[in-house]
Amino acid sequence: MAVKNKNKVRVIPLGGLGEIGKNITAIEYDDEIIVIDCGLAFPDAEMYGVDLVIPDITYLLNNKEKVKGFFLTHGHEDHIGALPYVLKEINVPVYGARLTLGLVKSKLEEHNMLSNCTLNEVKLGEEVKTERFKVEFIRTCHSISDACALAIRTPEGVIVHTGDFKIDYTPIDGKVINLQRFAKLGNQRVLLLMADSTNVERPGYTVSERVIGENLTKIFSHAKGRVIVASFASNINRIQQIINSSLFYGRKVAFSGRSMEKISTIAMELGYMELPKDQLISVDDIDKYPSDKVTIITTGSQGEPMAALSRIAYSNHKKISIAKGDLIIISASPIPGNEKLISKLIDELFKKGAEVIYNALEEVHVSGHACQEELKLMHTLIKPKFFMPVHGEYRHLRRHSLLAEDLGMDSKNIFVLETGQVLELTRNSAKKAAKVTCGGVMIDGLGIGDVGNIVLRDRKHLSQDGILTVVVTIDKASFTILSGPDIITRGFVYMKESGDLISAAREVVKVEIDKCLESKVKDWFTIKSNIRYSLGGFLYNKTRRRPIILPVIMEI
Amino acid sequence: MAVKNKNKVRVIPLGGLGEIGKNITAIEYDDEIIVIDCGLAFPDAEMYGVDLVIPDITYLLNNKEKVKGFFLTHGHEDHIGALPYVLKEINVPVYGARLTLGLVKSKLEEHNMLSNCTLNEVKLGEEVKTERFKVEFIRTCHSISDACALAIRTPEGVIVHTGDFKIDYTPIDGKVINLQRFAKLGNQRVLLLMADSTNVERPGYTVSERVIGENLTKIFSHAKGRVIVASFASNINRIQQIINSSLFYGRKVAFSGRSMEKISTIAMELGYMELPKDQLISVDDIDKYPSDKVTIITTGSQGEPMAALSRIAYSNHKKISIAKGDLIIISASPIPGNEKLISKLIDELFKKGAEVIYNALEEVHVSGHACQEELKLMHTLIKPKFFMPVHGEYRHLRRHSLLAEDLGMDSKNIFVLETGQVLELTRNSAKKAAKVTCGGVMIDGLGIGDVGNIVLRDRKHLSQDGILTVVVTIDKASFTILSGPDIITRGFVYMKESGDLISAAREVVKVEIDKCLESKVKDWFTIKSNIRYSLGGFLYNKTRRRPIILPVIMEI
Repeated sequence: MAVKNKNKVRVIPLGGLGEIGKNITAIEYDDEIIVIDCGLAFPDAEMYGVDLVIPDITYLLNNKEKVKGFFLTHGHEDHIGALPYVLKEINVPVYGARLTLGLVKSKLEEHNMLSNCTLNEVKLGEEVKTERFKVEFIRTCHSISDACALAIRTPEGVIVHTGDFKIDYTPIDGKVINLQRFAKLGNQRVLLLMADSTNVERPGYTVSERVIGENLTKIFSHAKGRVIVASFASNINRIQQIINSSLFYGRKVAFSGRSMEKISTIAMELGYMELPKDQLISVDDIDKYPSDKVTIITTGSQGEPMAALSRIAYSNHKKISIAKGDLIIISASPIPGNEKLISKLIDELFKKGAEVIYNALEEVHVSGHACQEELKLMHTLIKPKFFMPVHGEYRHLRRHSLLAEDLGMDSKNIFVLETGQVLELTRNSAKKAAKVTCGGVMIDGLGIGDVGNIVLRDRKHLSQDGILTVVVTIDKASFTILSGPDIITRGFVYMKESGDLISAAREVVKVEIDKCLESKVKDWFTIKSNIRYSLGGFLYNKTRRRPIILPVIMEI
Repeated sequence: MAVKNKNKVRVIPLGGLGEIGKNITAIEYDDEIIVIDCGLAFPDAEMYGVDLVIPDITYLLNNKEKVKGFFLTHGHEDHIGALPYVLKEINVPVYGARLTLGLVKSKLEEHNMLSNCTLNEVKLGEEVKTERFKVEFIRTCHSISDACALAIRTPEGVIVHTGDFKIDYTPIDGKVINLQRFAKLGNQRVLLLMADSTNVERPGYTVSERVIGENLTKIFSHAKGRVIVASFASNINRIQQIINSSLFYGRKVAFSGRSMEKISTIAMELGYMELPKDQLISVDDIDKYPSDKVTIITTGSQGEPMAALSRIAYSNHKKISIAKGDLIIISASPIPGNEKLISKLIDELFKKGAEVIYNALEEVHVSGHACQEELKLMHTLIKPKFFMPVHGEYRHLRRHSLLAEDLGMDSKNIFVLETGQVLELTRNSAKKAAKVTCGGVMIDGLGIGDVGNIVLRDRKHLSQDGILTVVVTIDKASFTILSGPDIITRGFVYMKESGDLISAAREVVKVEIDKCLESKVKDWFTIKSNIRYSLGGFLYNKTRRRPIILPVIMEI
């Protein structure tokens, strides 16, 4: 195996292809592996009760001694969120920009593992060397500060990974994407480009973040009461603009929501956000100021039921409640799947008498990802020999490959891969190689991977039709029923209103057991499956539902 | 009560306000009630296992002898879908246009109740008279043929209900919205306008359906293999345009999916759709023609797992499978909540080698609802004294009321109501009156209303953390454990991998029961709640999950 792969660069995506989130890619050369990002994914609607999904890192564990470090493009959850779980298994150094590491640090602290981990801050423009690789961090622009692309020098050529990016000529922090550097790399020779595909369906350019700030200031000018703005806590430039609009109108600023409080503190400590101390107030003190002198910046822009804005809307927040005249701005757009939650939240806020502004009405949010024209610029600057679209559903990857073809690239040099599929590169060639183990590990509470497909299938089934437990005690010696059958249901029908149905069901079970006992069927397994079959048929007939039936036989 | 409400027109929305779907509004005057529409709603994400929701018609049942008929604005499910359930309780005549009744008829046939029902076809422009009311059907335009507004003459004045509508100056069937009639009504005197609010957030005009046809023909011109188009079966004009594009390129047409087959048959029988007999082919025969001579029109544009397009994509369709070169057009936009399903479906189609065109890429769908400028036109033509926005979430109703204010209406004359809230009108006045019973009745399988909040709460809980059943047999006389405790779980953890946890849990239960028995606690209720408490605490500690715990004590 080691001989077979010698002198080849192997690009091994362990997540992030054909899916949104869980971004992690290993780059292997002989005896070394470096890993780009280590993100989590949020569960989809079928993953009942699951909190998070992290990548399956079996491949890294099987090659543990090779792994030299994690190199982070930016500090979003889908790029750093799995680190606390993964570093427990492979404790190697982590490299990233200042803010990115600030966010990782706070995450590791929460998991009580910071002291065991090695975090190495890299200045943008600098290079990290391992035996086989040189990794250069290049400034880009995204919806979080300190986003980078990585230029990875391998023995066979340079790989450029854009990370998540967009091109903003007028960023809030003045730190413009380093297009010169990409141009220079393109002038030399780039073996492989891996580029963000999230917004490839959108024509044109992404609007500058600065425009949102101007719109916010305009909206603030009409506000007569409090302004409550919900946004992503990690979008520090957005938060800065909300702060700026607030200060411009003499409003004090309060932060609400755990991640908003946490990230704003980190951002201010590290110098990424500016808010004069005397302009920052606690949520406890908001009532001490006239309502037109207060801005509250909060979490919950996705309608998450436990986040601050939902708690405020549904009157479950201890310190903030909606007053007539409040102006709510939802400075975010819905992540697919959250549309209904957000819609309900907006309705509730309206009903409580607030005015609500959201992206359907005014431009109060802009994406962090490059649209088609920006992608074309990046491709044209970098002029790679090979191209592999990353970060996106399969259709985004497909579209991105078509965009590259439109720019004149040979389709043979474009590789739309799936997670787990390996791309093997030499100085002059690229080809798909055998797949490696990959997938998602579901986190539910403290359990890592103990919820699998069987549990999920049961949870889905339970959610649709509920469960009937049938309990009976049987005397082993005389082979007669001592007690029961009793039937208890959850999630099936409301017991009080369906006593007749349950009585009839009990009779069905009784007849079935008697039949078994009479014909001397003595193995519980057969009796149980007979109960399941008869009772299942009876219930389906009566209700057209198929609850889980759980027969329990107690023998004495 | 009867005296109190005398000589007043009472508008009683029993559904459709502050929600999408379940449209039904009663209009009452003294001893008569007429009902506009009788729709269903689809369950939201929290309604686990529920198939449909129909309106609670307690108010109509309590005033059964007054109800004179149902008057239907058009044939969409959210306007006619509850009829089979409601007519079983109140069998009064149903009035509607030709196509609308054609769809109702097929629905009643499925429920085996057609022969007991009275369906009265009304020609557009005609009037139906009851003792107290005259109901005129006025042609509008919507995403289904034969959509109408209703002008209801009451003893106190005219009420105009727009139904769902948009303004299309170039409709496919040539039947233009009767703006003259609305203008004339406005010239006389309209007491109350009730108007569709669905698209009030969108500026400008809705594009004409005809544009979609032109785009489809353009797209068809590039197709080298089969074309498979998914759309809403009831959008007959859209289907007609897909047929037209197909015939233009010499393609035969096949229909796939139950509702597509059903509705296209009805539409052709009633003369609403034209397709020469020799151009219609069965899905069984598609392989007999060259692939560039076949179009398949199918259901499943919302990614519904059981609809034809999903079955085709996931290789579960008996007769159609995706071939390389197939062009799929999803001629619909996602209904909120379906985004993820559709996205997965598109990915799957791409993966199978098809080309997929959807609304994010090309204009292949247009809404059936009026945007802001169209709404302004309707308000301006009708010039009502009072206005009540209908059909929409609360924020849509709110926005629509602001639009009316912008047009110069006095905010005192605008009524944003909730479902169940009554508006009482006389010739010169309008005011909110006491609420009536309203709500949703959930249909799950054959059960109508037997799934309530407790069952739903349990289903949700089950779906998140699963269930643990604890069974123990106790000897009543000696007060000792005879058998158990046994623990069986579903949806909690995968049993085989968590034997230790379950053994430990069993021990916790045993200790708890022994404690109870020793201290002579003899009521099962207390013992059960002690088990729940101790075991719940133990499991939360170990897993951070809170499964439903179901203790069962069998006594002998």
